[in-house]
Amino acid sequence: MTDRSIIIYKLKNMPTISHIGSTLPYSPIRKLVPFADAARARGIHVYRLNIGQPDVETPKGARDAVRNADIPVISYTHSAGNLSYRNKLVEYYHSVDIDITADDIIVTTGGSEALMFAFNSCLDPGDEIIIPEPFYANYNTFALICGVTVKPIVSSIEDGFALPSIEAFEQMITPKTKAIMVCNPNNPTGYLYSKEEIQKLGEIAKKHDLFLFADEVYREFVYDGAQHFSVMHLEGLEQNVVLLDSVSKRYSACGVRTGAFITRNKEVYATAMKLAQARLSPPLFGQILGEAAVDTPQEYFDAVAAEYMARRNTIINGINAIPGCFVPMPKGAFYSVARLPIDHSDRFCKWLLEEFNYNGETVMLAPATGFYRTQGKGTDEVRVSYCLNISDLQKALKCLEEALKIYPGRTN
Amino acid sequence: MTDRSIIIYKLKNMPTISHIGSTLPYSPIRKLVPFADAARARGIHVYRLNIGQPDVETPKGARDAVRNADIPVISYTHSAGNLSYRNKLVEYYHSVDIDITADDIIVTTGGSEALMFAFNSCLDPGDEIIIPEPFYANYNTFALICGVTVKPIVSSIEDGFALPSIEAFEQMITPKTKAIMVCNPNNPTGYLYSKEEIQKLGEIAKKHDLFLFADEVYREFVYDGAQHFSVMHLEGLEQNVVLLDSVSKRYSACGVRTGAFITRNKEVYATAMKLAQARLSPPLFGQILGEAAVDTPQEYFDAVAAEYMARRNTIINGINAIPGCFVPMPKGAFYSVARLPIDHSDRFCKWLLEEFNYNGETVMLAPATGFYRTQGKGTDEVRVSYCLNISDLQKALKCLEEALKIYPGRTN
Repeated sequence: MTDRSIIIYKLKNMPTISHIGSTLPYSPIRKLVPFADAARARGIHVYRLNIGQPDVETPKGARDAVRNADIPVISYTHSAGNLSYRNKLVEYYHSVDIDITADDIIVTTGGSEALMFAFNSCLDPGDEIIIPEPFYANYNTFALICGVTVKPIVSSIEDGFALPSIEAFEQMITPKTKAIMVCNPNNPTGYLYSKEEIQKLGEIAKKHDLFLFADEVYREFVYDGAQHFSVMHLEGLEQNVVLLDSVSKRYSACGVRTGAFITRNKEVYATAMKLAQARLSPPLFGQILGEAAVDTPQEYFDAVAAEYMARRNTIINGINAIPGCFVPMPKGAFYSVARLPIDHSDRFCKWLLEEFNYNGETVMLAPATGFYRTQGKGTDEVRVSYCLNISDLQKALKCLEEALKIYPGRTN
Repeated sequence: MTDRSIIIYKLKNMPTISHIGSTLPYSPIRKLVPFADAARARGIHVYRLNIGQPDVETPKGARDAVRNADIPVISYTHSAGNLSYRNKLVEYYHSVDIDITADDIIVTTGGSEALMFAFNSCLDPGDEIIIPEPFYANYNTFALICGVTVKPIVSSIEDGFALPSIEAFEQMITPKTKAIMVCNPNNPTGYLYSKEEIQKLGEIAKKHDLFLFADEVYREFVYDGAQHFSVMHLEGLEQNVVLLDSVSKRYSACGVRTGAFITRNKEVYATAMKLAQARLSPPLFGQILGEAAVDTPQEYFDAVAAEYMARRNTIINGINAIPGCFVPMPKGAFYSVARLPIDHSDRFCKWLLEEFNYNGETVMLAPATGFYRTQGKGTDEVRVSYCLNISDLQKALKCLEEALKIYPGRTN
């Protein structure tokens, strides 16, 4: 809120919003939506490369479980989630070599709530958390809500956004540092951390007595035959690790809002359970869907991975073929961060929606500025998501190519 | 965490949980669950008067909407909730004379999330909120998470838990006071605030420039022909009022986790939308169920209200007939707070589960201590919920009567 609006409010004698609320950023992924709506209203077709909403069908078996459930009283479930679902999740985690029990799991309302449980259970206002940037923008919003300070550690587009060195991490650690957080495979960069990198992170966490939070909601989305190595595989880190998970992407079921908070640290678990009890229960239908989804046949995932790999190749090769553009080839998730020859990504992304069209079409991108905490970073970068089919991706690429030819703020 | 356990953790070289996390209380409604489980394991039947989980069927039309929905991709919904659901909610609110638009509504994950949105949008750490006590225990948990101080203002069992005087409120107001919160009809007392009382609250909020939060999730549960008067009916308070709502109790659909955050204050709304966007979307299936539920025929509510009124009369008259007990006759919700001739409600409620049975049966109650912030209050009070059928309520009453005859901590 500006000083002027504060004065107006005081004159009007109205209660004012919280300071925390006023400092929260608008979602970089969603803040351009009004401009996209306006473009559509002018008859422009908008290819949405800004958002990670898969177009893949939710497995039929999982959807049918909800349709076939006949529950006369839609009651609260256990605050940790239905035991039958947690038992089924144990089966799923065993299938990816993660050895846990139902008592290590709290079913959450999406990965977002799992993140809030981790922050509130482990961090106090004023505490610091180190996160390699660029990072998923909402981490910062949740940190602001909790009064936690995000200390970004820059990963570089030239290295394909690999993990910064141990030395770089250790330089960031202060007496207030309480945790390190990583997203693997990464949103927004698509980077897949190697076993060695995760082990390095584990060593730092262990040595400095830090929590290690890992968001692994894209675990199934790895390409080129690469293997995902989970923080849960780290030995001797049982008291440090908190896994944040979600069925949203795995089963293309973002709308059910069903995630999981997982830790072998019993004190952290008990604390998170107090938070879980305060909000009573996670949503029932998402648990029914999630429980059935564990039985989704491997062919489903194989087909999805093949499709995403083809999409990835289309978008990455396509962007790299545009003069002045560079984007690393990601090994996971369905995003990447591309460097474009532009003056400012916020301006460019808005211009694409407000002033540009190519044969009545344009493209919506997420300015990378919102994925950095460090001021001035990401101004020549955008996050591209490749959740659209290949034909649409090709049209979106054409729009981008044509747009860069005439964008007034082009830099080289 | 005790000092000793801190030391043990330091010795073990483990990261420690947050201070905030360590101060969070265990739910007074759920903390006795392990003792109830143990009683059941010994073959004791436990009548659960501790929890507000209705046994009433969710309306069939609402359930069928979920069963009949055939959605190939379970996508995120709009962060404010599907427009079709918000439009239907507008229809519902019009039916109870609350005049709002779809742009005043954010669909939330249960009433709990609506409460968090209100706290985070309007209050900063260190701010104070005045709440008549006894109050719903989780308000305090959410306040602790946000660093907000709850200033309880005692309502008295002798007055049937009526609203304290304006003078009592004004004595509580400090420069840090930012909001007043009320639950109407009240959980845990069952008290229904009159139009005059709500207007008084509105005057205080207006005069002192405070937010007025109202949890009205039991709006439909009013008895003896009484009328519910909403904070949304207050004129001139449009900038102060935030309504917290939920379908959980209205349609006996606690498990869908579908609530609403409603305000005509555009700045508060915009701030809450930043929180809503950070968590992406409320659950889809609850919105489908909620949208269909608005068309539930009036007979459903009439039957439910008649059943609850009969249950209320059974439990209230039954408790008042036990020597030494007193409970006011509530006009709303499905709870009341009863005074019992006991030394300590925590001890008594635990004893009921651990040491007592009457013909192989016992009763589970919620100690009222958890509903008070003021130290020492509620030690001779319990919250009773009347969500069971009349036959079970009568058996539960018999257990309570027999228990009080032999409880070693009986006081008169």
